[in-house]
Amino acid sequence: MNYLGIDLGGTNIKGAVVNEAGEIVREASRPTNVDKGPDAIADGIAAVIRELEQGEKFAGVGLGCPGTVDDESGEVVCAFNLGLIHYDLRGAIKQRTGYEIRLGNDANVAALAEASVGVGKGAHSVVVITLGTGVGGGVVLEGRMLVGWTGAASELGHMVIAEDGAACTCGRKGCFEAYASATALIRMTKEAMGAHPESVMHEIARESGIDGRTAFLAKERGDAAGTEVVRTYVKYLAAGVTNVVNIFFPEVVAFSGGVANQGEALLVPLREEVSRQEFGGRYVKRHARLVNCTLGYQSGVIGAALLAKQ
Amino acid sequence: MNYLGIDLGGTNIKGAVVNEAGEIVREASRPTNVDKGPDAIADGIAAVIRELEQGEKFAGVGLGCPGTVDDESGEVVCAFNLGLIHYDLRGAIKQRTGYEIRLGNDANVAALAEASVGVGKGAHSVVVITLGTGVGGGVVLEGRMLVGWTGAASELGHMVIAEDGAACTCGRKGCFEAYASATALIRMTKEAMGAHPESVMHEIARESGIDGRTAFLAKERGDAAGTEVVRTYVKYLAAGVTNVVNIFFPEVVAFSGGVANQGEALLVPLREEVSRQEFGGRYVKRHARLVNCTLGYQSGVIGAALLAKQ
Repeated sequence: MNYLGIDLGGTNIKGAVVNEAGEIVREASRPTNVDKGPDAIADGIAAVIRELEQGEKFAGVGLGCPGTVDDESGEVVCAFNLGLIHYDLRGAIKQRTGYEIRLGNDANVAALAEASVGVGKGAHSVVVITLGTGVGGGVVLEGRMLVGWTGAASELGHMVIAEDGAACTCGRKGCFEAYASATALIRMTKEAMGAHPESVMHEIARESGIDGRTAFLAKERGDAAGTEVVRTYVKYLAAGVTNVVNIFFPEVVAFSGGVANQGEALLVPLREEVSRQEFGGRYVKRHARLVNCTLGYQSGVIGAALLAKQ
Repeated sequence: MNYLGIDLGGTNIKGAVVNEAGEIVREASRPTNVDKGPDAIADGIAAVIRELEQGEKFAGVGLGCPGTVDDESGEVVCAFNLGLIHYDLRGAIKQRTGYEIRLGNDANVAALAEASVGVGKGAHSVVVITLGTGVGGGVVLEGRMLVGWTGAASELGHMVIAEDGAACTCGRKGCFEAYASATALIRMTKEAMGAHPESVMHEIARESGIDGRTAFLAKERGDAAGTEVVRTYVKYLAAGVTNVVNIFFPEVVAFSGGVANQGEALLVPLREEVSRQEFGGRYVKRHARLVNCTLGYQSGVIGAALLAKQ
């Protein structure tokens, strides 16, 4: 039998029918319509389910959602971007479709997908770190998602790495997210551009705007200020990644999100720094593999379907 | 049947026969004799096993050891204080006693004991943080120790909380251990005493020397400099503890080690700070209980025995 996975995002509700092997059979998508409120979101999810059903009865339905969810109660505890606070999503979907959905955090289910059928397939343990607008984290230990006692675990982005440092959206100061997100990289890029009017980053920005690629492109062209931005960004990223390694000693740490598109230009200096800082690194024989995720956007829907299967 | 647990420390080898309920039946102890080398340590362990055997055959023998161990290969990977580097301890003990010992990190097995029969009994998940000469960590998730792919996981003390901060013994800068250990608290106390000749801490130090209690005693007497040391120490401790909460969302975080002897004088301000910083704390209904461990030194031997039972 097949499973249905839903990736509930701020813009779109993506759904996919996924077979036992974790492969996508068919897909559908609708706008989330956040502005119309929680019940409209539930209506949209129900519509995606009906569109994908095509007479088929699913063995289970899973849903990944940003923010904090409680799979025990079926409630979205808080997903600010979606306007969902203590919303009984399981109840709302059951009422509309008859299905009792399983709920996961979007980064957690994406990690489940990468660990099960993606870059971490067959690995003992996988940590996925998403370097996007924020920094998301998902941890899969021997096939199981780490969700903790509250359902909210694996918030790796909200680990302070620089006490009293840059302000984070969560209210703390110095979080990993405030230094390793694409947002942080853009902040560092703008600061360096302000301090270095001679930098080639200004020319790059005139062509394509300022984004997470600007400093990396400048570094490729031998620009000193751009090189320094990349060095600083990698230093902070390595601090958080080494923390994750020292805490979990996982077999795989896999990156996704905008900044991860830099590929080896990011991973090569990152591996060097992490291997230098890893606890007992000189003696331990096994070292975490630092790689990029391979499933792309599909990790969200596949992971949600795999959650339903568990 | 009973299990044998051994706590291999830098000074003593402690052993205990532990019954199925996790209770100590009888105990023994011998000096570790680190200066005589690895084989003498193994001889000492074998002697403790024989002394406790008293004609009984144990269902299993477990051993907790500082540093990094590999329970798969039976090797102590690196325990610097014991002079053990890539030492086949399982082989050495098997040769001497016939028992195939299970190996765990000492902080990890202590956490297993607290989670199974101590302060965390019945809890979904327990993190133990030891505030001693260093900062040790042990994580038990649904009854199982987190040891990672390498056997070395749960090194919570070597999580950077202050990038480019105080030097840590592990080679990194700004580790949790460099701010939350008793050693760090004593460093902060000495710095404050240097800056504040008027502080009552000088009087306390003349009576009983400078240790982890000095600043807390001064705070009790209303001393401003002592109060500030405690505030600063709690601030850093809270940063690391909140990180642990945001990563694991465990049911219990339990403290042991010298600084934990301050009890509620430490825990009250710590709980306040962590609850303020916890991710989604305003919305999540379940919050980690911050408490002290209850088993004392027995957690080491009981945990080792419980590891053998698993």
